[in-house]
Amino acid sequence: MATDDSLATGQRSLGDPALDYPLWPPLTSGCPRTSTEDVSYPVEVDYAYDKADPADLFAPVRARGGLERWAPLLPPLLAPGLGEGATPLVELEPGVYVKDESRNPTWSHKDRLNRCTTSAAVGAGAPGIAVASSGNHGASAAAYAARAGLPCVVFTGPDAPPAVDAFLNAYGAVVLPVPWEARWPLLRQVVERLGLHPVSNLTTTHTGHAYGPEGYKTVAYEIFQDVGVPSAVFVPTGYGELLFGVWKGFEELRRLGLADRVPRVFACESAASGALHRALAEGAPAAHVTVGASEAYSIASPVSGYRGVLAVRGSGGRTLTVDDRQLAEAQGELALAGLWAELSAAAGLAGLRSLGAQAPDDGPVVCVSTSSGFKDKGMGSHRTTPAVPTWEEVERRLRAAGITG
Amino acid sequence: MATDDSLATGQRSLGDPALDYPLWPPLTSGCPRTSTEDVSYPVEVDYAYDKADPADLFAPVRARGGLERWAPLLPPLLAPGLGEGATPLVELEPGVYVKDESRNPTWSHKDRLNRCTTSAAVGAGAPGIAVASSGNHGASAAAYAARAGLPCVVFTGPDAPPAVDAFLNAYGAVVLPVPWEARWPLLRQVVERLGLHPVSNLTTTHTGHAYGPEGYKTVAYEIFQDVGVPSAVFVPTGYGELLFGVWKGFEELRRLGLADRVPRVFACESAASGALHRALAEGAPAAHVTVGASEAYSIASPVSGYRGVLAVRGSGGRTLTVDDRQLAEAQGELALAGLWAELSAAAGLAGLRSLGAQAPDDGPVVCVSTSSGFKDKGMGSHRTTPAVPTWEEVERRLRAAGITG
Repeated sequence: MATDDSLATGQRSLGDPALDYPLWPPLTSGCPRTSTEDVSYPVEVDYAYDKADPADLFAPVRARGGLERWAPLLPPLLAPGLGEGATPLVELEPGVYVKDESRNPTWSHKDRLNRCTTSAAVGAGAPGIAVASSGNHGASAAAYAARAGLPCVVFTGPDAPPAVDAFLNAYGAVVLPVPWEARWPLLRQVVERLGLHPVSNLTTTHTGHAYGPEGYKTVAYEIFQDVGVPSAVFVPTGYGELLFGVWKGFEELRRLGLADRVPRVFACESAASGALHRALAEGAPAAHVTVGASEAYSIASPVSGYRGVLAVRGSGGRTLTVDDRQLAEAQGELALAGLWAELSAAAGLAGLRSLGAQAPDDGPVVCVSTSSGFKDKGMGSHRTTPAVPTWEEVERRLRAAGITG
Repeated sequence: MATDDSLATGQRSLGDPALDYPLWPPLTSGCPRTSTEDVSYPVEVDYAYDKADPADLFAPVRARGGLERWAPLLPPLLAPGLGEGATPLVELEPGVYVKDESRNPTWSHKDRLNRCTTSAAVGAGAPGIAVASSGNHGASAAAYAARAGLPCVVFTGPDAPPAVDAFLNAYGAVVLPVPWEARWPLLRQVVERLGLHPVSNLTTTHTGHAYGPEGYKTVAYEIFQDVGVPSAVFVPTGYGELLFGVWKGFEELRRLGLADRVPRVFACESAASGALHRALAEGAPAAHVTVGASEAYSIASPVSGYRGVLAVRGSGGRTLTVDDRQLAEAQGELALAGLWAELSAAAGLAGLRSLGAQAPDDGPVVCVSTSSGFKDKGMGSHRTTPAVPTWEEVERRLRAAGITG
């Protein structure tokens, strides 16, 4: 966008609209001529309205979010939406984009999946939804269930992050904190005994919900609309559902004749898990691993699924494992670009950075950032009552930060 | 959207793509024929791809967010964006829409303002940005400053919510917690002594930043594109900048010949403050009040500004004051629709509900929800280690919630 796209002509006093000022500098203390000691009057910006092209500028748009935008290539969307999807691509540096999924209704990519799974529950006539999750998945399922007027049971672990705990309860879900090992047996029981519709995995190796990953295809559709087919997509990977959805979406674009290739998809796993990496190394459809210590609770998965194998092999991609230090570095890099991501969500960028000089250089790359930093476990912090600092103390702090005016 | 918009035809095994199943019921345990005791294979959804209209479905879009979309009617956007704006309107009930501003880059409406204020700082050649805020405004300013590569100093109060504290620090801002009364003098000092560009108010009654409210006009532009000119817009109101921006945006649409009227704008204030209400009652351009006890820290303002007076009078609207109980009820109503809003952000809906049978019935109404529930002060909660519940205990909890299968 060129600077001179703006039709702004100057600043006009709100205290007396007959008074105007040049556009620069911004009058950060309001209108100097009408303001008194008691009342300050603001200014506003004025424009050359006669030079605007209203018909073009305000042309109606298709929905600003909502998977119904993509209804033909999704399962029937029988549950109401919350304006999910349509997230922006933010350019981090030339050729490197971040697909910021924290702009979704519950601030993670999971909303794309749960619009589809909740629709499945509605279509199946289920009396409610059941999910085992301490994180984004459960929160999102609870929101979509609430929106659809369906009861939702969430089996959380003992260590759900404060934010997730808070909004699970806000959405009116029945939240049952149980020890980890009890979650899957209980999930099966409520499904089998009460007929609740499961939106979490029920199987030994991961299969998850039949319709869920379909929602993730829309990530690929949107990237394609924004920048065409990138060279590669780096995807935070736990069970591999998002990974599969992104790959399938691009495959569909090829099938429909819109693209002549698919991007390589890079599965960015936690080094504490690496279940998909192991499955591929062993030539197995899926693998179980013992999960090591990690704060990246959203991607440190003890099991993988066959979808991940298909996506990596089918796209000519590969797995990348990143440890918590690499994740924290990528999280910091995103934050300094104005994007506060969950630690696990930074796995896409961490994966790209782990390639160093071997990073793809044959076109733009996209790192998916799946969720917001407020989902991290250590988010809540507390502080002591501050005292009034002297000016010298303030100046010292600022100088230490390189601010000298 | 009609159910039959979907071209889905059935479910296909990923274990053996030659195997397919009907679309219903969703196979929530994967492919029954290829799965074994050790490995479970997922299914995917198949579509009648030959019936899709690719050119229409995947037509390129203008940017999915980013105020540059509206550049002609904004001050020069000299600072880089984060894909702000383009938030969805979510239908709460027939004719009542929620404009969900929690989908912005730092999860509040403030990002629209700070794209403009940071641009002003860049245009003015300032060595950095200064802001006094314990909430959304400071967090947003810190993000945009980081994105622009400018230092940012944030004077917070002693009681910044955990989430805001966490992301202020993540964005690399210099965070200086000081007692409330020290914030404004210190802000003035860093502006005067160091030349930092202030993006908070500097005056006795509120004027704020000259360019800031321009960003809020885009809320009106987007509502207009989505549903035309509504009957009324209910706006959470602290200093009244968002209120003014929404009104001005609709006024511009009228000026440009696209609309023949503006919606009434309802200023929804905290009953603990009501500064704009007092100003209007007294026929004054602005008023000071003593703020009572309230958890709605984002809107309980001790002072109003003349912008609010102009917006309410100019639109034929009025002020509505809502107490914390009404805010909590509206927050609960939003959450049960799948939208977890900050307490202050629920003021728009609380204002509408406070009108009861006197609510506007001459067209759609829009309630702006400014921010996410994770910004609330009491957000972090802790829990004890759970024990494994018996099935009977689970059943009792579910029965109590009305879930009997």
